[in-house]
Amino acid sequence: MYRTHTCGELTIKDAGKDVTLCGWIQKSRELGGMTFVDLRDRYGITQLVFNMETNPELCREARKLGREFVVRAKGKVRERSNKNLKIPTGEIEIEVSGLDVLNKSELPPFTIEDETDGGEELRMKYRYLDLRRNPVKNNIILRHRIAQEVRKYMDPIGFIEVETPFLIKSTPEGARDFVVPSRMQPGTFYALPQSPQTLKQLLMVAGFDKYFQLVRCFRDEDLRADRQPEFSQIDCEMSFVERDDVLDTFEGLAKYLFKQIRGIEFSEPFLKLPYQQAIENYGTDKPDLRFGMKFTDLTAIVKGHGFQVFDNAEFIGAISAEGCSEYTRRQLDELTDFVKRPQIGAKGLIYLKYGTDSSLKSSVDKFYSGEELAKWAAAMNAKQGDLVLILAGEKTTTLSALSELRLEMGNRLGLRKKDKFVPLWVVDFPLLKWDEDEKRFFAMHHPFTSPKPEDIKLMETDPGKVRANAYDLVINGTEIGGGSIRIHDADVQKLMFKVLGFTDEEANNQFGFLLNAFKYGAPPHGGIAFGFDRWVALLGGQDSIRDFIAFPKNNSGRDVMLDTPSAISDKQLDELMLEIKKGKKN
Amino acid sequence: MYRTHTCGELTIKDAGKDVTLCGWIQKSRELGGMTFVDLRDRYGITQLVFNMETNPELCREARKLGREFVVRAKGKVRERSNKNLKIPTGEIEIEVSGLDVLNKSELPPFTIEDETDGGEELRMKYRYLDLRRNPVKNNIILRHRIAQEVRKYMDPIGFIEVETPFLIKSTPEGARDFVVPSRMQPGTFYALPQSPQTLKQLLMVAGFDKYFQLVRCFRDEDLRADRQPEFSQIDCEMSFVERDDVLDTFEGLAKYLFKQIRGIEFSEPFLKLPYQQAIENYGTDKPDLRFGMKFTDLTAIVKGHGFQVFDNAEFIGAISAEGCSEYTRRQLDELTDFVKRPQIGAKGLIYLKYGTDSSLKSSVDKFYSGEELAKWAAAMNAKQGDLVLILAGEKTTTLSALSELRLEMGNRLGLRKKDKFVPLWVVDFPLLKWDEDEKRFFAMHHPFTSPKPEDIKLMETDPGKVRANAYDLVINGTEIGGGSIRIHDADVQKLMFKVLGFTDEEANNQFGFLLNAFKYGAPPHGGIAFGFDRWVALLGGQDSIRDFIAFPKNNSGRDVMLDTPSAISDKQLDELMLEIKKGKKN
Repeated sequence: MYRTHTCGELTIKDAGKDVTLCGWIQKSRELGGMTFVDLRDRYGITQLVFNMETNPELCREARKLGREFVVRAKGKVRERSNKNLKIPTGEIEIEVSGLDVLNKSELPPFTIEDETDGGEELRMKYRYLDLRRNPVKNNIILRHRIAQEVRKYMDPIGFIEVETPFLIKSTPEGARDFVVPSRMQPGTFYALPQSPQTLKQLLMVAGFDKYFQLVRCFRDEDLRADRQPEFSQIDCEMSFVERDDVLDTFEGLAKYLFKQIRGIEFSEPFLKLPYQQAIENYGTDKPDLRFGMKFTDLTAIVKGHGFQVFDNAEFIGAISAEGCSEYTRRQLDELTDFVKRPQIGAKGLIYLKYGTDSSLKSSVDKFYSGEELAKWAAAMNAKQGDLVLILAGEKTTTLSALSELRLEMGNRLGLRKKDKFVPLWVVDFPLLKWDEDEKRFFAMHHPFTSPKPEDIKLMETDPGKVRANAYDLVINGTEIGGGSIRIHDADVQKLMFKVLGFTDEEANNQFGFLLNAFKYGAPPHGGIAFGFDRWVALLGGQDSIRDFIAFPKNNSGRDVMLDTPSAISDKQLDELMLEIKKGKKN
Repeated sequence: MYRTHTCGELTIKDAGKDVTLCGWIQKSRELGGMTFVDLRDRYGITQLVFNMETNPELCREARKLGREFVVRAKGKVRERSNKNLKIPTGEIEIEVSGLDVLNKSELPPFTIEDETDGGEELRMKYRYLDLRRNPVKNNIILRHRIAQEVRKYMDPIGFIEVETPFLIKSTPEGARDFVVPSRMQPGTFYALPQSPQTLKQLLMVAGFDKYFQLVRCFRDEDLRADRQPEFSQIDCEMSFVERDDVLDTFEGLAKYLFKQIRGIEFSEPFLKLPYQQAIENYGTDKPDLRFGMKFTDLTAIVKGHGFQVFDNAEFIGAISAEGCSEYTRRQLDELTDFVKRPQIGAKGLIYLKYGTDSSLKSSVDKFYSGEELAKWAAAMNAKQGDLVLILAGEKTTTLSALSELRLEMGNRLGLRKKDKFVPLWVVDFPLLKWDEDEKRFFAMHHPFTSPKPEDIKLMETDPGKVRANAYDLVINGTEIGGGSIRIHDADVQKLMFKVLGFTDEEANNQFGFLLNAFKYGAPPHGGIAFGFDRWVALLGGQDSIRDFIAFPKNNSGRDVMLDTPSAISDKQLDELMLEIKKGKKN
């Protein structure tokens, strides 16, 4: 062993000890005849001291150390005269008597400090240096801790972690697969799993009863910001359960993680909000409930007064922003610009100011009397000092625009605090969604999601109305996990495929192994999958997942550190019997 | 919840309780007016009883239940008259008052019993049924337990589990990569990791100090028996360590697993056997030390007596098999046939019987006097009743053939017991191996393996003699893990590449990201990787890894259950800009 201690553990109690430390040179400074060097490792920073008077040779050596050199230093622990009480080792320093440079370092391309001068691309290219920085390092350690805690919760309650295969079969339904050409059977391919969905269902057929896995998944999608082609899931499935058994089990996991990682206790059960209500109240199936501003439907109240925008609208909805009645023209213009951005797409914004002096002022005063406006305020439950913001138009897009406006107001009013967490279950999702292009229904989740038993009768008469026995865990406006009770009844499964427009042959081609398995005694079962990267980022108090992944890919799916994807040799292509097409993609 | 209890937990203490159980019909039998049904789930088997006298309707329903039907049964726990003390639930049964068939089952293609009538291929195709069988199910549960225990050992001693990427870069050195075509950058490829070797070294450069991961790895090799294209590793790396620090840490892991999983305590340190000695004493770098039969080199003693086979041989080696002096002609012929098999390749077998009556009889009596034979026996430390078996020829092949013969004798004598474990470290491997075809040295492990410091001077003068700072953990003749101290010094790394015949450009092309990283302060580091599938099979007391993997591939790399690899759509090929070459492979 090169060292006796780490750079994070020596305190005043160790004064007088002879120690050997190893680490990287964080920085050094000269002060009078002394050289002070901060030595850093994963565990902390310890100050090394060299004295020009007592040991000039060693001190001269120390002065040659550059940033990020790797050294081993021997010496004696002593109390510091100038204590730094911000760090655990800040009361001591090492009076160095021996120094070895274990490795030199070129000048790093950015500073290895909590706040770095490195840009995104540079940090990605030199990820191994970026990982030396506390914020990134701590994220990865947090990820480790959470992974261990997940297992500490799952294992004692009987869940078996089963490793499912990565080289599986490509299925065209769902997102796009990454494929892996087979050399032994040229012209054929494996696919990397988008999730172990069908495999975990097979484990239920196999009688495993309770399964989980912390597992990598792959999706070859055009990347949006903060999406990764490979990502990790906490994947879970249980047998002989109904919906609330699953929710209870994983609400337990969520509460356990909040407790262990953040010290937060949730004593109350999480809210269960039906999808339809989430949409009507918040315009989204992942509402951020850290703050209120529930929508009010003003359609009936505001129509029929000659204001065309309202009179022609399918839906008029509003939120009330507390204490914002004094918003200036400019602030209101900003909000109007915000909702008119193409990605939000509202035509305009109507407001009603309920002044602290009880005055009611709106942007459509000429169409509505004070009495009418008072009705609006009453419908909104607005108080003096509130600002009512109103959007109108086609219902779906207006609800969605109002949702964005609500979040924007939440941001402006500081209501979306990083250290506040409001989890809820969104339940009763629609089973199917209509695709206008293909003129057919698609499964909202996947074709094995069970309809709610009471809605099965609608499957053939009004499929769009059928609710799924599906659920999402939403925290602070982010979907952290989702799942469903699965279909285990062959007749219901047949009906599902029929509604999706699958022939028996198509169903068998794609899911034959699962449908076959279901013939041999499938138990009722259901499960959930959590986005592990998201969970970790959330518990780490950040929005972006990227710095919670040791070696992430950039937005083009490239690993700029490894410089991949990259060309492979002709020999490799030949072995796989593959040719690369010339020219551009259509 | 469909049930109140599992099928494995009710005992005599629960008598009188009203319970609901779910599970699969294992078997049923009629006896007088009663029907007895064994209901099975992951946790055990509980007997259900139906009485034709008291509840004829329900009893008739029960008689319709087929094997592997999934049912829910309500009833009362009562003491059994005919107890089965072999199972925990054997003292009770359930007097059933309500029965639901949750799912029917077709007749399974093989029996779901500990001993099944299903052949290998059938069991693979219906793996979800095979997994219902106790032996396979228990293997997978054992795997889960071991995985949890590995983490329970690694986490408290400061190892961080870091998830490394699966979509990495193809490197031609080493085994063959599986590749993954990129759609976003057509004509380029990712590779699936053969191991996270370079990534874990980057984590050391990043200062993570102690890393581990239970991780899937991929190798596109022509499959030998019991090899899988995807397999799992316990992958580990540490900084600021010397060889024995690594060995101590992971000897600790091995001892911990033996203790937790098998209840076996190893109080002594594991033997450290230098590679050269392993070869000379046992003819292999993974000796099975559950038994002795160390080799004796008889070359000097037996040469020069006119027996051409010996006189012309480079090497003559022997083992002594205790108590086998009475082996018959036929037994000796079998052994001769064994060593002459092409995969072993000896020309013949010479024996010396040291009779219980002190007689010495050899197959080459006419060349050697009794006095000479007595010298052999003395050199062998043979006792009365022993059988000395001698092979002669070119040294390397003879050592290797003698190793096979030793294992065969171990098997014949019952010395290779499944419940005995003898671990050892094999150390000081050669750094390089000469490739006669390519006329150059290759790295025995990989090009980052450090030479032993005292051998660095031989790197340019006699590379074949250089020993690596590398080690394997060998248990019962199986390599369970291997690793090395890595090169962290840029000059030594340059020398290594020079000896391997890499130009700077080639080295940079393949390992540029790692060599670059090493410029910014690489700490001394080393690590190890364990074959997790092997570890689990060993602790499970079996030779084959296949039944310790939930969904294994067959010997052609196919998943016959999923029926993959398989064709993908033209649309997928188009998106990847790939064409499949016509015709056969060269």
